[in-house]
Amino acid sequence: MPRYLLKFGGTSLSDINQIQNIASKIKSISDQGHELIVVVSAMSGYTNELISMVSEVSSKHDPEEYDVIVSSGEQISAGLLSISLKEIGLAARSWLGWQVPILTEGIHSFSRIKDIDVTAIEDCLKDKQIPVICGFQGVSSKNRISTLGRGGSDTSAVALAAVVKADRCDIYTDVDGVYTSDPRVVAKAKKIDKVTYEEMLEMASLGAKVLQTRSVELAKNEKVRLQVLSSFNNVSGTMVVDEDEILEKEIVSGIAYSPNEAKITVSGVSDKPGIAAKIFGPLADSGINVDMIVQNISLDNKTTDLTFTVTRNQLTQAISVLEDNMDELGYKNIISNDQVVKVSVVGVGMKSHPGVAQKMFSTLGQKGINIHVISTSEIKVSVLIDEEYTELAVRSLHTVYGLDES
Amino acid sequence: MPRYLLKFGGTSLSDINQIQNIASKIKSISDQGHELIVVVSAMSGYTNELISMVSEVSSKHDPEEYDVIVSSGEQISAGLLSISLKEIGLAARSWLGWQVPILTEGIHSFSRIKDIDVTAIEDCLKDKQIPVICGFQGVSSKNRISTLGRGGSDTSAVALAAVVKADRCDIYTDVDGVYTSDPRVVAKAKKIDKVTYEEMLEMASLGAKVLQTRSVELAKNEKVRLQVLSSFNNVSGTMVVDEDEILEKEIVSGIAYSPNEAKITVSGVSDKPGIAAKIFGPLADSGINVDMIVQNISLDNKTTDLTFTVTRNQLTQAISVLEDNMDELGYKNIISNDQVVKVSVVGVGMKSHPGVAQKMFSTLGQKGINIHVISTSEIKVSVLIDEEYTELAVRSLHTVYGLDES
Repeated sequence: MPRYLLKFGGTSLSDINQIQNIASKIKSISDQGHELIVVVSAMSGYTNELISMVSEVSSKHDPEEYDVIVSSGEQISAGLLSISLKEIGLAARSWLGWQVPILTEGIHSFSRIKDIDVTAIEDCLKDKQIPVICGFQGVSSKNRISTLGRGGSDTSAVALAAVVKADRCDIYTDVDGVYTSDPRVVAKAKKIDKVTYEEMLEMASLGAKVLQTRSVELAKNEKVRLQVLSSFNNVSGTMVVDEDEILEKEIVSGIAYSPNEAKITVSGVSDKPGIAAKIFGPLADSGINVDMIVQNISLDNKTTDLTFTVTRNQLTQAISVLEDNMDELGYKNIISNDQVVKVSVVGVGMKSHPGVAQKMFSTLGQKGINIHVISTSEIKVSVLIDEEYTELAVRSLHTVYGLDES
Repeated sequence: MPRYLLKFGGTSLSDINQIQNIASKIKSISDQGHELIVVVSAMSGYTNELISMVSEVSSKHDPEEYDVIVSSGEQISAGLLSISLKEIGLAARSWLGWQVPILTEGIHSFSRIKDIDVTAIEDCLKDKQIPVICGFQGVSSKNRISTLGRGGSDTSAVALAAVVKADRCDIYTDVDGVYTSDPRVVAKAKKIDKVTYEEMLEMASLGAKVLQTRSVELAKNEKVRLQVLSSFNNVSGTMVVDEDEILEKEIVSGIAYSPNEAKITVSGVSDKPGIAAKIFGPLADSGINVDMIVQNISLDNKTTDLTFTVTRNQLTQAISVLEDNMDELGYKNIISNDQVVKVSVVGVGMKSHPGVAQKMFSTLGQKGINIHVISTSEIKVSVLIDEEYTELAVRSLHTVYGLDES
């Protein structure tokens, strides 16, 4: 009997009516003769309500008690879904993180799953009962409730799918799957039937917020077959699979963009070995994530410019870190720009097809779009451009790589 | 260092502002050099919201999942109060039922506390940390969340006070303490400084809903000194103590009334041994609670009448049980009346003072109030009268026993 893990996000469980619809969906899948494990998020909006209460009571973040409070969200949705399943004749019960148990490590509110003991869940399945497991939460080595960070339910689902050796992990959400680009920007974007883990990772980290990045990494490492699909219809979604499973690899699978970027240029830096480490060291120590980096050619053999990107909400902090270290770094000045966007062409097939980057640059050039920074990996080319060109760039690239829906 | 257990009800924790006020109150008590253990209910109204979601999803009661869902209420209030305490400089942490652990037995939603392991709580106290423990909830032998029934937080508080050997268990609520009668009916009712457990039990079960009956029984058995007091001022409340602690015992401590009563008369019952058992057996089997019972004198030595009371919401069910057994019971007919109220005079001193009941009967007689049924115990006299006389009866008795505030 095939064993499926089904994960339902908060937008699929936003009220009692939707919870009952999800119960019917689970029943129809169960009736096809599948063995099911269910993972749930909190009802949509509920977690934000709890978080706002927490921040009302204190401006300081208390990660332990935060976890106690916000984890109540999945507790409620798991209970309500279990009752709904029983109501339509399926045996079911809720499982909280500590009951499974899902053991975590690391700091509260950003914990990582360390181990899952599946004995109790396997017993539950043997009893022909559907386990409805709270996503997002676990229990620390100190027996306290821990949570995995926002979107952590995807990671819970993939980790559970791995340990119970599920044939597939279906992530039900409010979109039909992964698209070749953001359909709000590119009307001709189409659903992708299959993507590789690597492509999905690039898409996820580049702003296509369908799956939490960590869950994709975990699925890749544990070889969990993932499907992203909609709770609101019965159409198949996007399969995220190993490269071997895709025979005809698309050269370019999708055009992603990430608006949450800011650019910093440190100019007049003395051009000698170790200067990059000197600049990026203090930033890393302050928890600032640096993404694209370009070092200009030194024209006078004495000084050079360094340009890099950070996430937009860390820009002010990054600048003040650099200013605090001005004496030691010995630069001339800092120029920053938060009106930029990163646009990326992603595709596992580009490994064996040269010319993908060239096509991108020439397309953007023809449209009069200036490129500030370029970065590449095996399966993607990213450029930083002015924010106002976002839609033009994404749509042009979507067309030129043949992704428009016919 | 005196050790106090402080329990805060839902009306004391109804919003963030109140939770912060309670934190300040705890700080001022802690600053007096007391060792504190805190027990909390869910924020006022929150449990009802959860219950309405549960009943929306299914008309059938699912006690296991109900417990999972409603127990999230104290989880949130304990977390928020712990953060508020830390915010003002006190070390604190939340404890869920399963973390303590508070082990329960019996059916879900109406569980009883079986055992409490205090090792972890004692360690917490040794670390100079205030434990903020979720009331109302525990964990079953099957490792599932269990709850103690509505108002169960009082029982959690008393049970914890007993096991940690607290010098006192302070139940903070929205009233100043226990009154000589319901202040909404008797304007001259005054706060009682001390009552015995026995008196409090009679008051609680007779409709003075200050404390859950089970919590008073437990306090009596475990000799936990209880105080009922208001969260909203700094006035001392009512102490509930052992009889030995009260030197000058009031003959009558209070006048209680219970409007939730209905009277049934089964007439023309054959007057032979075993008939009472025959009638009350099926009622008990159906879970119907019979309270006052009177069997009339048989005038013809053949048949008699039996009159008794049940709670008003069980009247219809009680009548249908009797009708179903009509052939076997062989009565003539059933007369019922749900426009009745039970009024009681309670006082531990009446044991040694005859004439208390006589004074009650004559007072009611003078006011033209007819008595339907009488029942007595060592420390109370109860009468069943027509509902319309409730206020008149209660006020007259309050005056005649010298309870009016001077």
